This record gives sequence, structure tokens and C-alpha cells, in this order.
Amino acid sequence: MVRHFHIELPAFGRGFHLITDLVLNQIPSLPDSGVMQIFIQHTSAGLSINEAADPDVRHDFQLFFHHLAPENLPGIIHTEEGPDDMPAHVLAALMGSSVHIPIINGQLALGRWQGIFLGEFRAGRRKRVVIITIIE
Amino acid sequence: MVRHFHIELPAFGRGFHLITDLVLNQIPSLPDSGVMQIFIQHTSAGLSINEAADPDVRHDFQLFFHHLAPENLPGIIHTEEGPDDMPAHVLAALMGSSVHIPIINGQLALGRWQGIFLGEFRAGRRKRVVIITIIE
Amino acid sequence: MVRHFHIELPAFGRGFHLITDLVLNQIPSLPDSGVMQIFIQHTSAGLSINEAADPDVRHDFQLFFHHLAPENLPGIIHTEEGPDDMPAHVLAALMGSSVHIPIINGQLALGRWQGIFLGEFRAGRRKRVVIITIIE
Repeated sequence: MVRHFHIELPAFGRGFHLITDLVLNQIPSLPDSGVMQIFIQHTSAGLSINEAADPDVRHDFQLFFHHLAPENLPGIIHTEEGPDDMPAHVLAALMGSSVHIPIINGQLALGRWQGIFLGEFRAGRRKRVVIITIIE
Repeated sequence: MVRHFHIELPAFGRGFHLITDLVLNQIPSLPDSGVMQIFIQHTSAGLSINEAADPDVRHDFQLFFHHLAPENLPGIIHTEEGPDDMPAHVLAALMGSSVHIPIINGQLALGRWQGIFLGEFRAGRRKRVVIITIIE
Repeated sequence: MVRHFHIELPAFGRGFHLITDLVLNQIPSLPDSGVMQIFIQHTSAGLSINEAADPDVRHDFQLFFHHLAPENLPGIIHTEEGPDDMPAHVLAALMGSSVHIPIINGQLALGRWQGIFLGEFRAGRRKRVVIITIIE
């Protein structure tokens, strides 16, 4: 059985944001056993599972991701929406558009330090839509 | 219920290629509700979901991906297949070997700007095989 | 139907390690048709599917991944666990926390050259836990 839920996330602004509780609060209940997929319907933001305890990690992610996909790379031509646009598409591809977490005993089987990250790669503030899919 | 379909893609050549319609045209019909996985059986090409409207985005992806994994990185030893081979393996790992899209109301629940990308990272032209899996 | 299996991997040490057989040896049997997910419960190690034949590929991956996320990037602040810690979180996000492989005719539908990689990004040796999920 497969069920879907749409969630509109708040407009966080550029950076990395923990959305584990935001997601769980929107789901009526988890099955005893299954898989949760979270899929983002955008091309300049991504999803990941990473360190949830120390906000410094999310600060440093921005420096590393800027290192990975710098603005104004020589030769790029898709620039009409600003210098942050093309790096955002690239970083979305690197991070990925979905995450998938086992559900065991009615709970997400996240490791001790894991949380669900939204990577928002555009400079402005945008509401983002994710689709939660529960397979049981 | 899980169903699988093999698709052989045309030999596109190095770059990023939109394959959304190619994939959908090979599937008899989508269920009302489910998930589609696309899995690539190769180690020097990858799959992603990204901006489908402007071909300039796919042009710029090549510049960024060359920046990420340059040819002739000092110290590498897996070079017998040419300077494009090892970067291709790395880029395949970064992009990923599968994408997963919710199916809602009998359609892929892609966002307005999203399409399915094949990232072909080898310099020559190769036919690539992907496996479509429908979970319903 | 969804089934889960916990596996504790040996403490490999930093680098890329083939775990295909380790994973398969822990599963009682594969269904005729389905999907296998492997999910890692850690934030400084990742999973990927890549070239399994030549160990040189895994050697070179370390050089490329060091290029992608160097130690001591200017401005980073999450450094109390050592210079390898923050790059490890970033590389885990780039590689991803799960892989998903179709199961066809009772076997993983891996391509000829594909194997399952553990990317261990911390300098020390740590046992890692993965959860295998079988959807059929």
C-alpha cells in the first residue's frame, strides 16, 4: 500500500534546515513497518540526511557547498535569474531530490545523530513543496 | 506489487540528456498511486531530476561537473581507459544510480520545472540500460 | 510486504569498501521480484553503487573525494572532532545515505561492473550499521 501527503515548507532562505519534526507532524501515523520517501518538487533545493545535533554543521555545509559550485564559473550561460541560480541546480543534483528512511516499529529508523535536511540553494526566500510517500 | 521494465537508451554521448518522455513511452501505464524507481546499470553514467525547460542548464552542468571531477587529478592510477574514465565513476557516484518519483493520480508527481536527467560522463557514445520499477 | 534486517559492518577505516557480498550473506533469501534498499544510520559515511572490478577505482575515489571536500576549509567552525569530521559530513551528503537496487528473478539486478560501496569518511575505524529493507 502506498500513501502520499503534500507538505508546504516555510520559506527558510538559503542554507540547510532541519525538517524532521515538520515532516513527522504532518503525517497522521506511521505504519508498523515500511519505508518513508520524501521528494522535493523543485530544481534548486535538495534533501539529505545528516548531522542534526550541532547547528555549526549546517553553517559549515554552506561553505563547502559554495566551494563545490561557485558562482560565476567561467563559461556558464544560464545566468538570467542571477549568479545563485545555476549553482543551485547543480547542488540540487548533488544532494538529490529525495530521501528514503526505513520505518521500523512505527518509527523512522534514523541513527542517533541523523535528521532530515532541506538544502535551500537560492538566495531568496521560497516556499517549497515536498511529497511524503509511505510504502507499507 | 512490484513490476520491472528494461529500457535501452540511445547512445547520447557525453552530457546531460532529458529522458522523461523516453521513459514514460516505454511503460504500459502507471498505477493510480505508487512510486517509480529508475535505476541505471552502469558505473560511469548517472540519473538525476533537474531543470527541464532551458537547455542552457544542461550545457552549464557539464562545466560544473568538470570543475567537480577534473581529468588528470594528480595521483590517480585507474587511467587505462582514458582520462575521462575515473572522473566518470566519481560523477556517477555524486549524481547517483537511481531516482524515485511519486506516482499520484496515475501521473509522475514531478514539479513544474522537473525532468529526468541522464548524466553521461564518458567521452564516447554508449547505449545505456535502465530498469524502471513500479511499486504500487 | 516490507522486511528489515540490521547489519553491523566491520570497522573498515577510511576509504571505499565493497560490501555487496557482506550484505547478501546476511539476507535469508531474496524475493522473486522487488526492491532492496540499504540505509546507513551514520552521518559521516555513505553508500553508493559503483565499479567493483578494479580496486584502483576505490583508491582514486579517495583522491577525488579529498578534492571535493578538503580539510581545513577557511571559515568552518565544526572542528572539535578533528579536521576529517566536517568533510566527512559533506561527503556523506554528496554520496547519499541509501541505495536502492531492483530485485529481478530472485537476484539483485546490478549491472556487470556494479557493486555496493561503503564510503567511510572518518579517519578512525568505526563499526557502521546499515538497515536492509526488502520491498516485494
